[in-house]
Amino acid sequence: MEQPNDVGILAMDIYFPPACVHQEALEAHDGASKGKYTIGLGQDCMAYCSEVEDVISMSLTVVASLLKKYNIDPKQIGRLEVGSETVIDKSKSIKTWLMHIFEESGNTDIEGVDSSNACYGGTAALLNCVNWVESKSWDGRYGLVVCTDSAVYAEGPARPTGGAAAIAMLIGPNAPISFESKYRASHMAHVYDFYKPDLASEYPVVDGKLSQTCYLMALDSCYRQYCTKYEKIVGEQFSISDAEYCVFHSPYNKLVQKSFARLYFNDFMRNCSTVDNDAKEKLQPFANLTSEESYQSRDLEKASQQVAKHLYDIKVQPSTLLPKQIGNMYTASLYAALASVIYNKHDSLDGQRILMFSYGSGLTSTMFSLRLHDGQHPFSLMNIASVLDVTTKLESRHVTSPEKFIETLKLMEHRYGAKDFETSKDTSLLPPGTFYLTKVDSMYRRFYDKKAAEGKIKGCNGIANGH
Amino acid sequence: MEQPNDVGILAMDIYFPPACVHQEALEAHDGASKGKYTIGLGQDCMAYCSEVEDVISMSLTVVASLLKKYNIDPKQIGRLEVGSETVIDKSKSIKTWLMHIFEESGNTDIEGVDSSNACYGGTAALLNCVNWVESKSWDGRYGLVVCTDSAVYAEGPARPTGGAAAIAMLIGPNAPISFESKYRASHMAHVYDFYKPDLASEYPVVDGKLSQTCYLMALDSCYRQYCTKYEKIVGEQFSISDAEYCVFHSPYNKLVQKSFARLYFNDFMRNCSTVDNDAKEKLQPFANLTSEESYQSRDLEKASQQVAKHLYDIKVQPSTLLPKQIGNMYTASLYAALASVIYNKHDSLDGQRILMFSYGSGLTSTMFSLRLHDGQHPFSLMNIASVLDVTTKLESRHVTSPEKFIETLKLMEHRYGAKDFETSKDTSLLPPGTFYLTKVDSMYRRFYDKKAAEGKIKGCNGIANGH
Repeated sequence: MEQPNDVGILAMDIYFPPACVHQEALEAHDGASKGKYTIGLGQDCMAYCSEVEDVISMSLTVVASLLKKYNIDPKQIGRLEVGSETVIDKSKSIKTWLMHIFEESGNTDIEGVDSSNACYGGTAALLNCVNWVESKSWDGRYGLVVCTDSAVYAEGPARPTGGAAAIAMLIGPNAPISFESKYRASHMAHVYDFYKPDLASEYPVVDGKLSQTCYLMALDSCYRQYCTKYEKIVGEQFSISDAEYCVFHSPYNKLVQKSFARLYFNDFMRNCSTVDNDAKEKLQPFANLTSEESYQSRDLEKASQQVAKHLYDIKVQPSTLLPKQIGNMYTASLYAALASVIYNKHDSLDGQRILMFSYGSGLTSTMFSLRLHDGQHPFSLMNIASVLDVTTKLESRHVTSPEKFIETLKLMEHRYGAKDFETSKDTSLLPPGTFYLTKVDSMYRRFYDKKAAEGKIKGCNGIANGH
Repeated sequence: MEQPNDVGILAMDIYFPPACVHQEALEAHDGASKGKYTIGLGQDCMAYCSEVEDVISMSLTVVASLLKKYNIDPKQIGRLEVGSETVIDKSKSIKTWLMHIFEESGNTDIEGVDSSNACYGGTAALLNCVNWVESKSWDGRYGLVVCTDSAVYAEGPARPTGGAAAIAMLIGPNAPISFESKYRASHMAHVYDFYKPDLASEYPVVDGKLSQTCYLMALDSCYRQYCTKYEKIVGEQFSISDAEYCVFHSPYNKLVQKSFARLYFNDFMRNCSTVDNDAKEKLQPFANLTSEESYQSRDLEKASQQVAKHLYDIKVQPSTLLPKQIGNMYTASLYAALASVIYNKHDSLDGQRILMFSYGSGLTSTMFSLRLHDGQHPFSLMNIASVLDVTTKLESRHVTSPEKFIETLKLMEHRYGAKDFETSKDTSLLPPGTFYLTKVDSMYRRFYDKKAAEGKIKGCNGIANGH
């Protein structure tokens, strides 16, 4: 077999729940000061799973949809990996539920399981899949990566930072979105910024301030190492001007604004020629801060965001569409941001570089870069943008009241880890072809059904209890 | 960089708890019929974690031990992956706890997280690590794989099938234990044979009979595909005579006996010339069973075990030492069986092949094969056997009464997912250099300390709450 080149993402699709709540309405409902969620967090809207949806149903939907829209035979998949931090079962992987789709076609020879560490599991799954294609054990088939999460928080300041989505990515050689594997840099450490030690609860334990500092420290560390690796190989200094877009893991948009400003401040401290004189002057007062002080300085935050603003609008803003409209999608967040760039800019990306930063609390983080090419149908940027169909999907959503959102979360608290119940089976809001949960039996076995595709009579697409 | 060859396992170490219970004593205590656990399950002894041990402390211990015994600088590790199904936190990976060891040396650029699907996560982590070394993103450093689990069951028939251990494996090129990547075959499916849907409980939901059938079905499917792939590449029929050893995931030894007999029955059905006439005659009555009937036939089970017995003693028995003495180690089981072969046969393995079968309920399974070479010190089979030091470790264990075992499990039921408690800090049974749990604070943060190495004054080796 030929040595595969330009390994990366061939195709993408996204599913997010049709129900959402406006952050402005939630702000008012919660009695928060005006702008706290919309400007303070930088968020517009938050999607949430109804009681017939979960991370399994969302990933079934997005995998079936990707295979169909790109006309991929399930037999062509040789590896399937899932990244998720939404635990429905502590032993059985989400990947095994997805095997339902492949068993039907007689293909059970599919490597890969679930990767887990907070919001980073999707990146781990993606890098594993790329490595597989580049390894000696690759058999010529495609890899498939699924990121699926439902982010929910207990009542309190973190609640508006929820969200939910599933993303599927097809992996193979000659990809329109390929990896520059040699510059990849990681920062991993032991820390308790966000974790889920209360096993009976769906909600995390969060130290919001610590988590933000950890995120920015990890960003600095990854960026420094990424630059060092780049410079060693390319022989030139790297700065953010060498990437047309910077895409960040996005728990809320405000942190993305801060992150980009932080990269700019890094470039200033590294004496990059691309930092202009005006910016140098404005950042000079912060040049002697210790690293620790620099994370705490509100003045630096303000000054760096201000000088980086014109570049943010060009290099970052196109990635913020889905994260601002859906909210935190945990493992899917970074790839929803990437999908936003593809959707918004697909006709001008050929030859460009996207710098990616993945973060998962606990903590694990990696910076890597992608090279974009127009590609060949069906694996072209244009076709990916068309399949993603972001505007239509966003516009057809159903905006619910904050009360309805809170009521749903209450019901889900009750059902988390529960057995022996049936759902309402109300699929009125779900698009045709969407999988949904029908019941959990007395042995905790979960049953799913699929809403009939338009014009079709509902068939036996259900998933029973295995065999 | 040169293309790496013979990628695989360079070094291994194992840690298992010093406390264990004899299956014969447990049998008597439980009022089970004589031989039910020892002959029926085929088990001798079962290790279990005391209240100062868990999957995190065991993996800290085994990683620190491997680095020390093979004289590996923590800076030389470029990837670290954990396989486990023992969930202490649903978001923060065990890998991040292990970063404590590497942060001390200033190395935080280490890819990899936790892989999870029942007992299969260790295999997923291992294959991921091997792929990484063979990929374009490999930077020349070592990979490190950790399998860590504590298998405990609610009172009832499954309780004697517990166990606990952590195994660490160093991954790189020119390995004495290298992968034959091209023949690898997987069988993955959606099934509820063993799972952990009750999030508040450490115990699984198990359908023992279904799980055994699933295991054997998966074995058949993997073996068929492995043979097909082998035959396509090598141009000759594969049979078990082409592997000097067959190593199986071992929940209990009886299933390993059945599995080897099943491979033999497969060879009979495939008309392999290596099945002798006497065996053919004895298996002929079962040649027309349907696949489903063949899994249920006790007569076939008996006949195939009988005709395969002489080969079992040669090809399988050397792998059963640790699994029979420790019990089910979930993700570590298969690799403890491999370690047993290395330990028992290290001076006669050069040039030989080991066939491996990994199974995780839910289900995921892979068959792959390894090529053995004597290797160069410190990465030689002889040194690995010496580091494993199995006999000394087994003989220095502390055999407890069934009452003590049951009392410990009761305490751990209470502590599972709990916060705000201190352990006894009783390290009297632990070998020097062993990590142990000291407390869990009111924020669920876990604190570990390290028992001083012999002749050393206890230093500040504790792990606090990150930073």
